[in-house]
Amino acid sequence: MIQIAIMGLGTVGTGVAKVVAENARQIERKLGEPLQVKTILVRHFKDGPYRQLMTDDFAKIEEDDAIRVVVETIGGVEAAYEYTKRALNAGKHVVTANKQLVAERGCELLALAKKRGVNYLFEASVGGGIPILHPLTQCMAANRIDEVYGILNGTTNYILTQMVRTGAFFSDALREAQQKGYAEADPTADVEGIDAGRKICILADLAFGRQMDPADVPMEGISKLSLRDVKIAQRAGYRVKLLGRAVRLGSGRTAYVAPHLIPEERPLASVDGVFNAIVVRGNATGEVMFYGQGAGELPTASACVADVMEALQASPRRDEIGWEADPAGFQDPRELQSRHYFRIDGSLTDAAMAFGKVEVLSEDGETAFLTDPISGLEAAERARGLRVLSCMRVLG
Amino acid sequence: MIQIAIMGLGTVGTGVAKVVAENARQIERKLGEPLQVKTILVRHFKDGPYRQLMTDDFAKIEEDDAIRVVVETIGGVEAAYEYTKRALNAGKHVVTANKQLVAERGCELLALAKKRGVNYLFEASVGGGIPILHPLTQCMAANRIDEVYGILNGTTNYILTQMVRTGAFFSDALREAQQKGYAEADPTADVEGIDAGRKICILADLAFGRQMDPADVPMEGISKLSLRDVKIAQRAGYRVKLLGRAVRLGSGRTAYVAPHLIPEERPLASVDGVFNAIVVRGNATGEVMFYGQGAGELPTASACVADVMEALQASPRRDEIGWEADPAGFQDPRELQSRHYFRIDGSLTDAAMAFGKVEVLSEDGETAFLTDPISGLEAAERARGLRVLSCMRVLG
Repeated sequence: MIQIAIMGLGTVGTGVAKVVAENARQIERKLGEPLQVKTILVRHFKDGPYRQLMTDDFAKIEEDDAIRVVVETIGGVEAAYEYTKRALNAGKHVVTANKQLVAERGCELLALAKKRGVNYLFEASVGGGIPILHPLTQCMAANRIDEVYGILNGTTNYILTQMVRTGAFFSDALREAQQKGYAEADPTADVEGIDAGRKICILADLAFGRQMDPADVPMEGISKLSLRDVKIAQRAGYRVKLLGRAVRLGSGRTAYVAPHLIPEERPLASVDGVFNAIVVRGNATGEVMFYGQGAGELPTASACVADVMEALQASPRRDEIGWEADPAGFQDPRELQSRHYFRIDGSLTDAAMAFGKVEVLSEDGETAFLTDPISGLEAAERARGLRVLSCMRVLG
Repeated sequence: MIQIAIMGLGTVGTGVAKVVAENARQIERKLGEPLQVKTILVRHFKDGPYRQLMTDDFAKIEEDDAIRVVVETIGGVEAAYEYTKRALNAGKHVVTANKQLVAERGCELLALAKKRGVNYLFEASVGGGIPILHPLTQCMAANRIDEVYGILNGTTNYILTQMVRTGAFFSDALREAQQKGYAEADPTADVEGIDAGRKICILADLAFGRQMDPADVPMEGISKLSLRDVKIAQRAGYRVKLLGRAVRLGSGRTAYVAPHLIPEERPLASVDGVFNAIVVRGNATGEVMFYGQGAGELPTASACVADVMEALQASPRRDEIGWEADPAGFQDPRELQSRHYFRIDGSLTDAAMAFGKVEVLSEDGETAFLTDPISGLEAAERARGLRVLSCMRVLG
């Protein structure tokens, strides 16, 4: 019998308890012995099936030598960071779905885990139930990873899908997402690209082997996206998707989050609703895509439980998946070349004067057009004299 | 310095040597020391960059204690099986891309590897450079896997894509694929579904934990597929794709290979050309899809080299990824329910007499239609009095 603890009993924490119970047979077959949730750390006691397992005293977990793995689903940094450090120091493996903590303090926590001879694993922090960090670091280990990009946030992808399908405005689609439970009451982290930003930082850390500081990464969400642009893009054969993107650039690397136009024949363009998809480009494999439910109770929880099993099977610990702490070498993402979409309050002549040859998508007082491939810096420079209503990159 | 051997110097074997050389820096960073190809087993000596490494005597590998991992890219069963056994018995890890050997003898070779305390790994045998076996067995380890299906053969998918895009007949599309090097001179294993069949067997072995005997699995390819059916399906909003499919069924399981109609809004429908995509349905994660280049020198080789690294890092050996040898519990795939597509030499009345309510797709002497969901057995039974020109399942 292997015993674990869960910290936090929100959606993911509850899911972990459910998956451990429901898939007990599959888990035991692989581990060779049963897995049991012994203790659950909560702030407030609640009635329910897990009432007898609850404690509000972290020391009950920290000092219990029978507990070999702790699943942290508290979220945020402060308490999660504190308890994670203490659990690692107590010689326990820690598994988490907490992307903020991993993006901001992952490097330090991995170093601590290494020192203590235990694992710190976080597959669930990116892509929910989609296997991505493991494949990126292990299955693609023989590649030089040149780029990672994808639809990393299900809430915004649901909103964008509704804007395309029903012609809803952003604000209406957001309200519907909130009613369906796909968006939080305070949707800021999702709609402003912060959640996607944390995830692309974790992907970049692992892909390039060096800390990607979230503070360096420009994050643009979809709250200012106009339905007009979504419709113009759609008529021209593109879908608007919020992408996180990390690219090897010279001897350094860059990352950002922003809405993009995606050609509709690309597999990423047909990723709709709350689904996520992440593309990894390796110098040997070419582009590989991972697709599935990027959030939700059971998918995310099953990724946590798989990490619990991995931590136990690789015990004392598997070889490092860490990265260098120094964030040096971050390049301005505006150095990246791509076609750019513009909508301006002006004529085709204005557009052509600024950009030379352009591909016109719509013209009716306002003009929407695509440029040739240019850097973001050049796009901004050339557009300086124009009344720009919106600007997005086109995925090449 | 870690030394390995390659057996066979065809496309994949050459690719392994290239990836080890080209990505030496990435590989060394992860392994902590350089990786080097010391010996290459060939049948006939050839000039070229690897001339000094070649031997035609397997004992040179078997008896060389410096060689810790052997990459088998010979293909087929006989020599590959013999040398794999001897390498494992000599205490060396073996990595392979040989799907026929794994599908037919994998269980036995895994048991031998376990006995000798070494690894037998074969990520490259399914999906080329797409990470799939690892994610299936590890990242989704907390799931009960209920189904695995996908486009497992790039050659046939290229042919089907050309039939859709250019209206080419099967025979012309095959010839073009041969000219481009996507199809072998003898294309039987690809176009008759045998290659896809071996891969679905390996996926089923790992997903369900019990031997799937290739001899049990009905394999239907695309050589008899009519361009007419491809076109009718396309006009009705479907794409014809060759799928391998393995499903948990009652207390047993089943598998088969056959062309299917896929609704065009499904991500699988937009997987074109030589690309592969595999969908895994877990009871916690729901459907997860893995997409990329399913063949080719560097993608497949990079999966082999990642397995080499995994074998070394998990040394002496990682926990078992084996399955039970007894193939009991195989069910007839005709028990599976789905809608069925039929084209008959007959009228709508004939169709309705046999199947009741149907959805007509085309009617001009011949009649093409979709049935309600029924089992394959019932479909065959009801169609007995009809002059059936073609029949395919519709992916639900």
